[in-house]
Parts: sequence; structure tokens; C-alpha cells
Amino acid sequence: MEKALEYAKNHREDFLKGLNEFIKIPTVSTQEKYKGDLRKGAEHLASKLSALGVKARIEETPGNPIVYGELLRDEKLPTLLIYGHYDVQPAEPLEDWVTPPFEPSVRDGKLYARGSTDDKGQVWIHLAVVEAFLKSGTELPVNLKFCIEGEEEIGSPNLIPFFQKNQELLKADGMLISDTPFIGENIPTITSGLRGLIYFEIEVQSVSQDLHSGSYGGSVDNPCHALARIISSLHDEKSRINIPGFYDEVLNLSETERADMAALPFNEEKYRTELKSKKLWGEEGYSVLEQVGVRPSLDVNGLWGGYTEKGAKTIIPAKASAKISMRLVPNQNPKEISKLFEEHLKKICPDTVSLKVTPLETGIYPYLADTNHPYFEAAQKAFQKAFQTDKVVYNRQGGSIPFVPVVAKTIGVPCILMGFGLPGEQAHSPNEWFDLNNFYRGIDTVIHFYGMMR
Amino acid sequence: MEKALEYAKNHREDFLKGLNEFIKIPTVSTQEKYKGDLRKGAEHLASKLSALGVKARIEETPGNPIVYGELLRDEKLPTLLIYGHYDVQPAEPLEDWVTPPFEPSVRDGKLYARGSTDDKGQVWIHLAVVEAFLKSGTELPVNLKFCIEGEEEIGSPNLIPFFQKNQELLKADGMLISDTPFIGENIPTITSGLRGLIYFEIEVQSVSQDLHSGSYGGSVDNPCHALARIISSLHDEKSRINIPGFYDEVLNLSETERADMAALPFNEEKYRTELKSKKLWGEEGYSVLEQVGVRPSLDVNGLWGGYTEKGAKTIIPAKASAKISMRLVPNQNPKEISKLFEEHLKKICPDTVSLKVTPLETGIYPYLADTNHPYFEAAQKAFQKAFQTDKVVYNRQGGSIPFVPVVAKTIGVPCILMGFGLPGEQAHSPNEWFDLNNFYRGIDTVIHFYGMMR
Repeated sequence: MEKALEYAKNHREDFLKGLNEFIKIPTVSTQEKYKGDLRKGAEHLASKLSALGVKARIEETPGNPIVYGELLRDEKLPTLLIYGHYDVQPAEPLEDWVTPPFEPSVRDGKLYARGSTDDKGQVWIHLAVVEAFLKSGTELPVNLKFCIEGEEEIGSPNLIPFFQKNQELLKADGMLISDTPFIGENIPTITSGLRGLIYFEIEVQSVSQDLHSGSYGGSVDNPCHALARIISSLHDEKSRINIPGFYDEVLNLSETERADMAALPFNEEKYRTELKSKKLWGEEGYSVLEQVGVRPSLDVNGLWGGYTEKGAKTIIPAKASAKISMRLVPNQNPKEISKLFEEHLKKICPDTVSLKVTPLETGIYPYLADTNHPYFEAAQKAFQKAFQTDKVVYNRQGGSIPFVPVVAKTIGVPCILMGFGLPGEQAHSPNEWFDLNNFYRGIDTVIHFYGMMR
Repeated sequence: MEKALEYAKNHREDFLKGLNEFIKIPTVSTQEKYKGDLRKGAEHLASKLSALGVKARIEETPGNPIVYGELLRDEKLPTLLIYGHYDVQPAEPLEDWVTPPFEPSVRDGKLYARGSTDDKGQVWIHLAVVEAFLKSGTELPVNLKFCIEGEEEIGSPNLIPFFQKNQELLKADGMLISDTPFIGENIPTITSGLRGLIYFEIEVQSVSQDLHSGSYGGSVDNPCHALARIISSLHDEKSRINIPGFYDEVLNLSETERADMAALPFNEEKYRTELKSKKLWGEEGYSVLEQVGVRPSLDVNGLWGGYTEKGAKTIIPAKASAKISMRLVPNQNPKEISKLFEEHLKKICPDTVSLKVTPLETGIYPYLADTNHPYFEAAQKAFQKAFQTDKVVYNRQGGSIPFVPVVAKTIGVPCILMGFGLPGEQAHSPNEWFDLNNFYRGIDTVIHFYGMMR
């Protein structure tokens, strides 16, 4: 592996340059207007893979294309499916970015841009690794398949049907994903579980149109008030989600698992200070790592109604809306929880207003890894070598990767979530960043990992 | 008066044409970008008054100009101060208008446009009346002063200091205002009371910026939730405003007054159906007319936080905001209620978030007329003649006109709220309209009213 590692070390600037070109394409999948940029992003990626020697192609879907690639050396070698995504979250609010979201900028060893860590930078690690092996003349000890989609941020609605139809094509001995963070700087972290997701938009309407708040105020329900009553009732005084049956299928940790989690190097007070939170909040009786990793959550992601521009307008709005999502944990079923949520909302909605509930995602299952598979040991060792540390940990992440639970459930291969992000990287927020040290050491880690496959 | 009435009848189309020109100037005072249009509106009005023979001029203020005019015939005649406003509410949401807000359009005898009833159409009645007297050679039996401001919709912050400084200039025996509606079609209504107003913007912040709802969900308070908890707590289960001391100074009606109010021709079921409300709402134990006329109210006028565009974005917003206003009734003091509100919010704000409360208005006092003054009897008779009905009623309105309580308090002259709007005219909403029959009969009413001043 030495030659490959040497090559990687000598080409860091080139790798960064390549990544920057990729980032500049604004591949926002949640907004219709970026449709053309998503295709451009896919084509750019496919052509870069081809240039490296990967047999890459665009696979059309009813939505954004999938970039598929193969580098099959020998059928006796193990085959790894590398999964990632080239789509990104919206960049809004734009005014909060120090440098524009699609003009990558390095400050203090961090690459600032939308998609830098989620997930273009982490995808680019895998292109750099292929280059390091092939250009340095090092024999690649694995067969590789690439499956990089453009709809991860909207719940992978087309990848999953594509996968169901093309299981032979995507067949592998393991899946490798770099789309998760370390628990702390220099503490390489293998993600052993992910939360699922359901996402709704709700609209509450009181009257047919906005009314003069003087002439009508006090005689009709205000949909902003009704919505506030609904939202405020969704958590109880212990900050638990107040929907009957919501926790029924939640898998509780054993005492040993809780102790392991408590032993992870994580400081709640540091976490609070970094977030500039006055006081943390969350389900009573659980640590922060438990609250975000192994317990479900419910959040309003957006809220609007009435007059929201500058100044005063004296109206009673006709409507008010909210986007509400829930993160689910093993063994909650997104379909069942969606049903519970919709039924509960109908039940609690005040009789003075009408209610519309629209799902915005098809629903993502939670995921839990079986870390006994030897690939996990290989991943641990690769991390140890590249980061020169013994401290490699397992952690369960609060985020969701729709494809992972589907692959795990359908074909049962190990999914190794070997990510290189860091806490505070602001993945879905303004000023998203990717630590360049982790970018370069990430390349080394994957080289070591392949080396251990021999 | 016959000749004046005859002239008015024969010039209805011209009056409408003149009004339409006035309406086309988008004099929205709540939005900075219309600053130039407000001046244009004031200059247009002043030049129209001058053309009629009124000595009109622009009075500068730190905000939008005031149009002042005099038509002083004889100091032995009573002097009436005509107050109105040329500024209008914002037109948003634009997509809800059947025809564009600043392109007046007549449908079914109604003039649709922003400002048609509030207040340009009602101001124009007074210009038409002057024209009818002067052009028909009818002797005007009163002296007239005009004071038409451009900041009524933002609480008259500059008119009131102007008035304090120019009391001699604005001195009159009575003030006449056309800026209120009838209680029902063909039921001329003299408004005997107005509600006051206070208006705030509140902002709740949890963390320093938007966070990934997967990575952080369940461990930090969501400002949308915190704001929902605050808003939902502001009314109790009887739909009363839940702020300690809020009702302390509210003047309760006597049994006779309640009986008079209950006898007004008003149908709550018809009101509900016209608003397309599933079920009315309001303070327990009070009728709709009481809820909007003699009881205070609190409304969220706008609400926003997080991601409000199309599609899904999985964030915990950093901030959430609301515009909250309260309508006050005699004898609530806007300054005292503002203090109660701000103190209460600070007290109930969850300790997981920070709170910012900003007043958007200086505060408007409520108003209650002494209807024993002979001008009120004259107003009743004028209405009876013009609308050929005995059914002229007094009603207390839910809206606020900042200048009225100030004039009433400071110089103690009667303020005759002789308005010509109709229920459902959507004064602050899309598709605002002014009934043309009321426009024309309104002109007749004022002619009769002046006639009775002799």
C-alpha cells in the first residue's frame, strides 16, 4: 500500500482542486429549480470516474440520475459497493454564509461550502483512492462498484426501486459509505446505527381569507394560534413525544450498551457551549448521545403564516403551516408511525379549523449494524493506522441514510459507515465545512482498508 | 340642498373616475419601498383639493406628508375637521387577488381595489361633496378643514405630534370621519367606539444557527416549539387572554347596553358562513358583536421560522418569530398593557431559549363617544334621508383609528364616525371592495349632514 499512500500524499492539492470543481455545481435536490444542475453534477462525476479508469455510466430514474461505476478486477477478490450522494441540502438562508455556498473557500484548514462534508467531499475520497492505486501502479485488492445517487436529501425515492430492480448489478460483499461524522476530533468513529425519518407538511385553515384583525379579532380562531396549540401539545412536560403508541416499538438499550455509550468521549457542556444554547433540552432520563442516537425525536423544520415581511400588518391570517419531521429508531416502522401521527393530528385538531396533512417523504427506516462481521474489524484497524490512534469507537448517529436500511434488510451484507465528518460541521446549515486533515487521512484510511481485504 | 344633491347624482361617473386615479397610486405605508408613492398620493390629493377651491397644502412630517386643506366661509358657521387617510395596507398575498390590487375594477356594483373602502373611497366622498356644493352654486353651510394623513395604517406616529403642535390650525367644532362600516347592508351605522391597538414582534432563539435535525434532534429546544408553547399559553380554555392584569381596567357594559347590542340586526350564523369558518371562536359568555366591539383581543398577525420553501429540509431552525397584536377597549391603557405583555412574556419564556420583544407601533388608545352631542342627531337624520330608512344604529367597532382618541381626549370635540363601508369588504385582505351604492349615497349623506348644520 506504500506506493498508493505516497501517491495520495503527493497529490493532495490536486484532489482538493478536483473536489472544488465538483462542489461548484449547485446540486440541491429539494428545490425544483436545480434540476439541470443535478444532471450536470451527475455527468461531471461519471466523466471523472471514467477518466480514472472506472467503467461509469448514468442510470436514468424518474428523478435525478444515479451514477453507476464498476472497477472489477478479479472475481475471486471481495467486491465492495461504494455508496454516496452528489445532491446537497438547500443553502438558505444565504445571508448567513461567510463565503458563498457554492464557491468553496478554505479557512483554518477547513473547506467551507455546501456539500463539502455532506457528501461531496466524502465521495471524493473514494475517487482519490482509486487514483492513488491505479496511478501509483499498486494492485487494487478489491473489486469496486460505485453507486452515487442524486436524491439522498429527499429520501432516495428512486434509488430504492432502482436497487430492487438491479440487485444483481449492485451485488457486493459489503457496502462502504462515507457520510457520517467522528464523535470528536481525532476519534475515528464507525457508525453502527442510523435513525429513520418521516416528514410532513401540515396546514391549518380557519377562514377563507385573511381578515382585518380589528373588525374580526376575538370572534374567529386564528390558525397561528391553532397551529401553536397543536405543536405545543406534541411534547409532554418530560419532553417526550406525546403521540399515543409512538414509543411502543422503540428498542431500549441494555444496561451494558448504556454504559458503553456513557463511556464515549463526549462532553455535554462543551456541546452546549459550541451550539451557543442557553440550556439543553430533551427527553428526561437520557444523555445527549442517547437522545440523538437511540431515542426518537420530533422537530418543526419550518413554520409560517400571515404577514412575515417588515413592519406591521393587522390581519388574522387565513392559514398557517408547518413542516414537521420525526427521526425514528429501531424498531419503529415509518409507515406505522406515519399513521399514528396523522391519526393523532386529526384527533387533536381544534374543531374551529380545518387540517391538511401531506407527507413530503416516503419514509426512511432506522438501521442497526451487526458489528461482528470481520469488515468492521478491518475498518477499525484502517482507522487506527491512518489516524495513528487506538481510540476508534462505535457510535449511533441521529441522521438518516435511506439506502442503508434497505440494503441491509434486502441483501443482508454488512454496511460499513466509515465517515470522516466532524462535530459542528454544520452539514445542513449555513457555513458547512469539511476538515481537510480528515479529507486527506480519510483517503489513507480507505487505502489501508482495501489493503486489509487481501 | 337640492341642487347639490342633483349635481352629485349627475356626476357619479366622474367621481368614480377621480377615485380610480387616486387608488392607482400604491400608497402602502407599512413597506419602505412605497415611500415615493406615498408622496405622489399626497401631492395628487392636494392638487385635486386645490382644483376644487380648497386652500390645500402639503405639511411635511418626519414620515409621510399630511395633506391639509381649508375652505373657510364664515366664522359664524360651525367648522368641521374632516379626517381621513390616503395610505393603505399592503396588498400581499398578491396571488389571491382576482384583479390586481392597484387596478380598480367594478364587479356587481362593487369597486375592487386596495384602499377602495379603507380609506380612499371614503375620503373621496368628501371631495365629491365639496364639488357638488361649489359647482352647483349651493351655499356651503359649514367651514371645512381637511386633514388627510399618510400613516394611519402604521399608527399615525407623526400626525399626533403634528396635531399637538398645530392645535389652533386644526381647531374645529367637530371632527367628521368616514372610515368605518355599516353593521349590515342598508343599515347606516354610526360608530360610537373604537378599539385601541398595541403591536409587537417577538423572536425566540435556541442555538446560534440552523442545525441538522438528524444529528441534533432531541437534544436542543426547537425555537418553533418554544414559540408555539408561548403562543398557545396566551389564551386560556375560555379563550380569554391569559396575561395577569390584562382585564383589570376593561369597562364592562351595563345590562341595558348589552341588551341594546343584542338587539342590533346581526346574525352570527350568517357571519360564520360568510367567513367560511367551521365554527366561531371567542371569549366565552360574549356575543360576536361584543367580542369584536367591547372586548379586547390578541392575535398573531404573522409567524415564521426555519425552512418555508417547497419540499423538505431537515433542520432545527435557530430562530422563530411572530408578530402579535392586541386590540384594547375602554379603559385599557396601551402603555400599561404593553408593559404587562412584555413582562409576562419574559416570565413565561422557556429557559432553553432567548427572547427579544420589539414594539412595532407606539400604541393606540381605545375610544368611546358621547353620543348626546347634537351633531350625532344630525348624523342620524342625514343617514335616514340619504338611505331612506329609519334604521340608523350605533355600534362599537373592533378596529382602531389612532387620531380619534387623541382628538377626543385633547380638545374634547365630538368625533362623528360616519362611515360607509359594509361587512365583508375585506379591508385588510385581498379583494378589498367598496360598495358603489354606498359611495354615492355616502355623498348624499354628507350633503344632508351639512344641510342640517345651518
